[in-house]
Amino acid sequence: MPFRKIAIIGLGLIGGSLGLVLKRRFRGIEVMGVSRSSAKIRLAVHRKIIDWGSTNPDKILSLADLIIICTPVSSIPSWIDKAERFAKPGALVTDVGSTKGALIRWAERKRFANIRFVGSHPMAGSHQSGMEYAQENLFDGSLTFVTSTSKTDPSARKKIAAFWERISKKICVLSPAVHDKIVSEISHAPHALAALMVLTASRSSLPFAASGFLDTTRVAQGDPGLWRDIFEANRHFVLRNLKEKKHHLDRFIRFLAKNDTQSVYRWLQKASLTRSRLGHSIQN
Amino acid sequence: MPFRKIAIIGLGLIGGSLGLVLKRRFRGIEVMGVSRSSAKIRLAVHRKIIDWGSTNPDKILSLADLIIICTPVSSIPSWIDKAERFAKPGALVTDVGSTKGALIRWAERKRFANIRFVGSHPMAGSHQSGMEYAQENLFDGSLTFVTSTSKTDPSARKKIAAFWERISKKICVLSPAVHDKIVSEISHAPHALAALMVLTASRSSLPFAASGFLDTTRVAQGDPGLWRDIFEANRHFVLRNLKEKKHHLDRFIRFLAKNDTQSVYRWLQKASLTRSRLGHSIQN
Repeated sequence: MPFRKIAIIGLGLIGGSLGLVLKRRFRGIEVMGVSRSSAKIRLAVHRKIIDWGSTNPDKILSLADLIIICTPVSSIPSWIDKAERFAKPGALVTDVGSTKGALIRWAERKRFANIRFVGSHPMAGSHQSGMEYAQENLFDGSLTFVTSTSKTDPSARKKIAAFWERISKKICVLSPAVHDKIVSEISHAPHALAALMVLTASRSSLPFAASGFLDTTRVAQGDPGLWRDIFEANRHFVLRNLKEKKHHLDRFIRFLAKNDTQSVYRWLQKASLTRSRLGHSIQN
Repeated sequence: MPFRKIAIIGLGLIGGSLGLVLKRRFRGIEVMGVSRSSAKIRLAVHRKIIDWGSTNPDKILSLADLIIICTPVSSIPSWIDKAERFAKPGALVTDVGSTKGALIRWAERKRFANIRFVGSHPMAGSHQSGMEYAQENLFDGSLTFVTSTSKTDPSARKKIAAFWERISKKICVLSPAVHDKIVSEISHAPHALAALMVLTASRSSLPFAASGFLDTTRVAQGDPGLWRDIFEANRHFVLRNLKEKKHHLDRFIRFLAKNDTQSVYRWLQKASLTRSRLGHSIQN
């Protein structure tokens, strides 16, 4: 592990799981936690998620070699600003937010002189949120995106990538825009459609839902505040993909309206073949 | 069990699983199987799914007290016709098809003199199809719909309901139209949306799909031929629900386009609360 003192800002599902994996699988590192809630810090120390923590971030930020911001997307910038003010010179800062474009543009405009910031996004999680669901193996088998642009410090990027290589199964370094396009298609827009399916099944039909519907709509249980921020931050790509979905939905509606069973078949067949190649979920 | 000799027509996932549960959990009944493939019949006898079977249905239909048609939706009517011709007087016939309105209308127009037909739909299954996936516990915990109209023979309906009560966890007796509306909302239209999600994620994004996307789109792997038939048979209600989905999708797109984060939040919150009340899938 290329870091000795690691600060985790925000002790939710991701921050808590990161603490567990760092404390249990690596030796000689000190894990410090920052949360607004002192009860949460006590619980995190008790569960051995962190060595110690504080509701006041100043000291912890000043001690850390690596600062990992695990708060909701909308408050990441203000934490990066705090890190710039309090961290020691050259400290590395990363985040685990689900959107990257707006954040990286903002960070690059700021031209930080003290810290070196690199964006990350571990593709691990759950429809559940909160430290109570934290688990050591959350990142096992998962992929982590690390963003890079012409302005990213190469040695900082290498160190952040090396950090995630110890924790998740695969690393993918890409531009913030490519990242945001990918996640809009495989996570954000599908989340909107899962919510849509729940909202358009009538109250009298829902009690009959079987495993198919429950799996299809599982993610719609996600925290609405977290997801509102994600949709706001990734609006551009989500809108583009949702409009494409609407276009395809229109096509399928036309096939059905004309009773064009051959086109319905081809449409379903293409989806079935494509989906079958992806395999099945290991979680759950 | 109110029947002694049971014929299963079609030895796929549902027919095969029915054979397993009947043979393993009940005594004194004879399970006969009909399939177009003699290899499948041999395998079904070997796996103790049926006692014996034949590719020629005439004799088996003439011996059965209960005939359960487990073929794809589109071939159910021709099997009911065959049952009317070959079954013994008063024999009970049911099916396990996912759509009921068109079938029951057709059956009632036919005014069968020999058999008594009652529609069923066990809400159990998988995205996988074929006898190789048959399992004794497929119906455990599941709900079975039994349809009833003013023309349904009440004693036949009672016997069919009693049959499913031994096999699935819950029975719901309802009209074919109410059935078709319910399943359009919790199964058929969601299937179309799951397929849509696969088709509108680009080839370069799909390899990054994580557990959320994989669960959300699991059902899209289903057999396209079976699903084409379901969409054709339940066109009316599926179209109605897909149009409603399109309308809601439009609304959500407008919220995002205007960056109306409050409406986005309320929309997601309603979906999250509603979905959370349904609990999670026991299968998978």
